[in-house]
Amino acid sequence: MLPSYELVYETYGTLNSDKSNAVLVCHALSGNHHVAGYYVDDMKNVGWWDTMIGPGKPIDTEKFFVIGLNNLGGCHGSTGPISINPATGKPYGASFPVVTVEDWVESQARLADKLGIAQFAAVLGGSLGGMQALQWSLAYPERVRHVLAIASAPRLTAQNIAFNDVARNAILTDPDFYGGDYYEHGVVPTRGLRLARMLGHITYLSNDAMADKFGRGLRSDKYSYSYDIDFEIESYLRYQGDKFAAYFDANTYLLMTKALDYFDPAREYDDDLNKAFATARANFLVLSFTTDWRFAPERSRAIVKALLHNHLKVSYAEITSTHGHDSFLMQHTHYHNVMSAYFDNIASEFTA
Amino acid sequence: MLPSYELVYETYGTLNSDKSNAVLVCHALSGNHHVAGYYVDDMKNVGWWDTMIGPGKPIDTEKFFVIGLNNLGGCHGSTGPISINPATGKPYGASFPVVTVEDWVESQARLADKLGIAQFAAVLGGSLGGMQALQWSLAYPERVRHVLAIASAPRLTAQNIAFNDVARNAILTDPDFYGGDYYEHGVVPTRGLRLARMLGHITYLSNDAMADKFGRGLRSDKYSYSYDIDFEIESYLRYQGDKFAAYFDANTYLLMTKALDYFDPAREYDDDLNKAFATARANFLVLSFTTDWRFAPERSRAIVKALLHNHLKVSYAEITSTHGHDSFLMQHTHYHNVMSAYFDNIASEFTA
Repeated sequence: MLPSYELVYETYGTLNSDKSNAVLVCHALSGNHHVAGYYVDDMKNVGWWDTMIGPGKPIDTEKFFVIGLNNLGGCHGSTGPISINPATGKPYGASFPVVTVEDWVESQARLADKLGIAQFAAVLGGSLGGMQALQWSLAYPERVRHVLAIASAPRLTAQNIAFNDVARNAILTDPDFYGGDYYEHGVVPTRGLRLARMLGHITYLSNDAMADKFGRGLRSDKYSYSYDIDFEIESYLRYQGDKFAAYFDANTYLLMTKALDYFDPAREYDDDLNKAFATARANFLVLSFTTDWRFAPERSRAIVKALLHNHLKVSYAEITSTHGHDSFLMQHTHYHNVMSAYFDNIASEFTA
Repeated sequence: MLPSYELVYETYGTLNSDKSNAVLVCHALSGNHHVAGYYVDDMKNVGWWDTMIGPGKPIDTEKFFVIGLNNLGGCHGSTGPISINPATGKPYGASFPVVTVEDWVESQARLADKLGIAQFAAVLGGSLGGMQALQWSLAYPERVRHVLAIASAPRLTAQNIAFNDVARNAILTDPDFYGGDYYEHGVVPTRGLRLARMLGHITYLSNDAMADKFGRGLRSDKYSYSYDIDFEIESYLRYQGDKFAAYFDANTYLLMTKALDYFDPAREYDDDLNKAFATARANFLVLSFTTDWRFAPERSRAIVKALLHNHLKVSYAEITSTHGHDSFLMQHTHYHNVMSAYFDNIASEFTA
């Protein structure tokens, strides 16, 4: 329970008069509200899905009113573990509750209420963002016309959970974690967060993409015969780990991974995903990427199967891409064409 | 450079009069010399490949003289980072040199010299052990009649190296590592070693095996909404991590993973594996397991292709198994039948 909370959000485009052109973008593990564009005073800070969203882009902000928010529990402005608990005057830290995909959708619905949006034209996201989009179709079937789940899954596998658990343990056992209350010790569990991110990156990239991009390339022409960096892939991972650990909050990382682990709409229906989607009413676009081994195409097909079982309208595309799970963030002609076509159809529903 | 070293080894069966029935078993990352059987005073301590080696087993110790050793740099009795450096009276620690697959084969050849074995009937191993077996065919083509590379690879991929690098970084950044000289501080980098082993286990098991064995099974019937253990897979990984960290030496772990990363016989031949095997003379059995994603069947087929290019005698079997990389350690009828048949043929060469 939180006595109150704030959500930070950005919007792009203009809400039309009957408020029928609103699109909600849900972010994944390390995302935030800054989905598209850049700031006048910080022009290098481009939104994480800027290739997808903007004037003339697949999600065309000349037609749609797009909302990006930082999820509850995040570390980019919305209330999270790093925020000051008004009751104590100190950061929430370990006392911040574990939040779930269901909680996020609930808080997003309240944001929609504030903005006077009764129904979204579309709710979408990739990976964990796709899970939130799916949850919208379950929690608020009448409030969303189209749900897009990209590189997502109906729930994590044991292997997915295992990777999350190693990442969490890296943070939890970092001596600088202090049970989650590291803020008041003036330290950050950088080592653990860095390892978590390095590991994450392995699962975001495909085996093939890693082989193509790095292979066994060496930083110098000789082996070092030490535990320093020898291979380019080591350099890349450590760089990514260092960069991430310098700005992301470890408690937020923990709760994001736990939300991933917990999401399982079939759980209360005897593991029957068909039953879970029985109340859904939206139309769906489900997309997967051939080399995504974190949320493989078969995971998306399981979603499609359950939707079809319920006679829902669903389009599915399995995009040939070498970039693994990260594909959903990349510029990719086929992928972007599918998105453009789908959003053109959505636009035709309210401009016609 | 080491001024001297000791290798601990065990033997099973009897060396025949012309010393033609000797078999060398090379171990993988966490293995040791205790390959088969048990000790009179420690009957629960069964060798790591006891299902494969013993009287009447695929590698029949009624026929073969089998040698298991602990590799140089190991932590089970052979000279390694934990051993006392006679020059200083203190453990080698960080001063212990990085050793390679080539070094191991060199030291194994010296052991063979000591035992008066001019030529092995077979040298074999799984995973990193298979790499040593392959290296035998390159370094000592006249000293080994049969080489068996099981669940192995001609070199690591970028993804393989990436996993090793995360594991190494978990150890290297553990505050109890002290640059490798933790012995003199009376501590052990348990946190890092535990994470390394947890991560390793994910790559040893197949996605399917994890799904079958653990799925999303919970330790209790409810989510904890905390960062404690929720899922059975988390409990398994943490148990494996704790168990390993209690007995294995972190410096040995580092050097074993580095030996894996460095092994690349094609490197000095312009990445041409065909050329690398041009001097090999042994007969080969190459085995892979369908669900092994760490060293996938295609990695074994690359070995087979290079051997065939050189007109070497090679048998290859791709074993259908759900157990991933760990399959090579498991009791499995098809796998064991292939091994039995191959070793029966080897035995017929010297008993006939």
